[in-house]
Amino acid sequence: MPELRKDPVLGRWIIIAQERGKRPSDFVVAEAPTVGGFCPLCPGNENTTPHEVLTYGRHSDVPNSLGWKVRVVPNKYPALVIEGGLNREGEGLYDKMNGIGAHEVIVESPDHEDVFFRLAPEHMSLIFKAFQERIIDLEQDDRFRYVLVFKNFGKAAGASLEHSHSQLVALPVLPRKIESELAGALKYYNYKERCVYCDIIHQELMQNVRVVCQNEFFIALTPFAPRTPFEMCILPLKHSSAYHEQTEEEMFALAEIFSESLCRLDACIPNVPYNFVLHTQPLRSKHLPHFHWHFEIVPKLTSIAGFEWGSGFYINPMPPEEAASYLSESLERISQEDDQK
Amino acid sequence: MPELRKDPVLGRWIIIAQERGKRPSDFVVAEAPTVGGFCPLCPGNENTTPHEVLTYGRHSDVPNSLGWKVRVVPNKYPALVIEGGLNREGEGLYDKMNGIGAHEVIVESPDHEDVFFRLAPEHMSLIFKAFQERIIDLEQDDRFRYVLVFKNFGKAAGASLEHSHSQLVALPVLPRKIESELAGALKYYNYKERCVYCDIIHQELMQNVRVVCQNEFFIALTPFAPRTPFEMCILPLKHSSAYHEQTEEEMFALAEIFSESLCRLDACIPNVPYNFVLHTQPLRSKHLPHFHWHFEIVPKLTSIAGFEWGSGFYINPMPPEEAASYLSESLERISQEDDQK
Repeated sequence: MPELRKDPVLGRWIIIAQERGKRPSDFVVAEAPTVGGFCPLCPGNENTTPHEVLTYGRHSDVPNSLGWKVRVVPNKYPALVIEGGLNREGEGLYDKMNGIGAHEVIVESPDHEDVFFRLAPEHMSLIFKAFQERIIDLEQDDRFRYVLVFKNFGKAAGASLEHSHSQLVALPVLPRKIESELAGALKYYNYKERCVYCDIIHQELMQNVRVVCQNEFFIALTPFAPRTPFEMCILPLKHSSAYHEQTEEEMFALAEIFSESLCRLDACIPNVPYNFVLHTQPLRSKHLPHFHWHFEIVPKLTSIAGFEWGSGFYINPMPPEEAASYLSESLERISQEDDQK
Repeated sequence: MPELRKDPVLGRWIIIAQERGKRPSDFVVAEAPTVGGFCPLCPGNENTTPHEVLTYGRHSDVPNSLGWKVRVVPNKYPALVIEGGLNREGEGLYDKMNGIGAHEVIVESPDHEDVFFRLAPEHMSLIFKAFQERIIDLEQDDRFRYVLVFKNFGKAAGASLEHSHSQLVALPVLPRKIESELAGALKYYNYKERCVYCDIIHQELMQNVRVVCQNEFFIALTPFAPRTPFEMCILPLKHSSAYHEQTEEEMFALAEIFSESLCRLDACIPNVPYNFVLHTQPLRSKHLPHFHWHFEIVPKLTSIAGFEWGSGFYINPMPPEEAASYLSESLERISQEDDQK
């Protein structure tokens, strides 16, 4: 059973997910394995994954069979396990509990060669809908307080399988970063009686130097204080703290802006590894006037070294205004270059 | 001029250290360059670095000449610059200021081939003394609030030069991680009227399952909730919040325990890349009953992916009790293996 442990000073939780029998020499510097021939996420191999919890696009009623467009399965090597009680307990001054949680894989397409950001919005919106549906389902489990949805694209960003997929982890505690965001946003709200994210959107539209693109429902921008070059944030224009309550129309618009933002990023730096994460309200929360759900997209372009580990400070060699300007011009530049050929 | 920017929600500061004329294609995934023939930190090349601010071991009075054992110079490519005022200002709801600070390199030995953890304690203690002396000197500059001392060893941990060196950055704001540690420790102190680190040391000595090694003045242990396999923490046994006030005898004992801890780590995983950071009290602080200075040593063995970025949670595949057991037996195991040959 994995274990959750809390740092007694920082309150930061960590998961001890012991891989049995690993010796020190097995901890070589993280380099994700390439899957040679066999892919457990490809159609035809449905029986090699744990039983699916959700699919879209299949016309037959036979579970774990062919014909799906998007498929959600429990992770075969989960960081947390679904069965058991939390068993919160102390060890002297330390706190720990069982590593209970859900860890699921969202297989984004049956086609092994498909790349997330090149999927048609009709298809991509099914993935965003799957995130919603899984959050709504996991919310019913009282042991869980938060569902973190994220994607690792490219080996350098931590992806261990080539086949396009994202992941979610349901956690029995509120992650420290979400807690900090909620606290920071509440502090601003208590002072101004306005949502800080709504104010950011308002200012970004006025200044128009960090906007990457926008549509009827969403805006993509480079944040004022980004951790890495080309970091982006996608926010709904209308205030909402609950990602899972967005309409299908909005999910389609989300797919459109996501696809455009990542195409622009790829046009700037082809095949750049990146992570994205969804920050939404905690499970079973009421609507929050101070919090605004959003996606953060973080390209893997700088290394986290002693200074960053020690301080929580980041050194970023590219101002977000310059990144936004490259991003917003990137597709146009490429099509001009094509015209000139 | 670099710029400091504050995230409006999290309060996290970042440094925009723009490298002029960099195009998106220049941001290839971080891979530190090897220095082929020429090393700016080697003896004989003293004139290729900015003017030294401290040396130990040189008998002559000629600055920037040969004969030193440890040499401190300003970083030639600093993340922050030393000249100028802070100019705190707003940009709508955002906060920023000039990127003012000191960024120095501690050249740990004249010998290009020397490895930090193999230096004799007499030599290594000079490095720890240099950290002290630089903190005391930079404390006089009212613009600075904190000096962060750190080391990147190995390319994967962010080292860009082969020649053994550590670094320090004097900052005009308190880093978020230090702020969190101070706040967490104060919360515990207000509740218990005891230092949380003193309590940790007491419990670790009692339990004796996470102790790596100890001597008259220091203890090295694997923390209860470590972020990575083989993470270690070195703390003084006697309460003190001020690293720069430790005696020469203590600095010698620190060199001894540091050397032993890193030799044990190297015996477990040869040449493992790692970072270390010093956490001490803020500049011009009075003695803090709740804070206890310490070094954190973080081997680079796991990758920071979407889950960690999004949550601030870490997944660690090795329990610290197991790591401590490997570490505490490592040197003995090697010497036994040698005996059997």
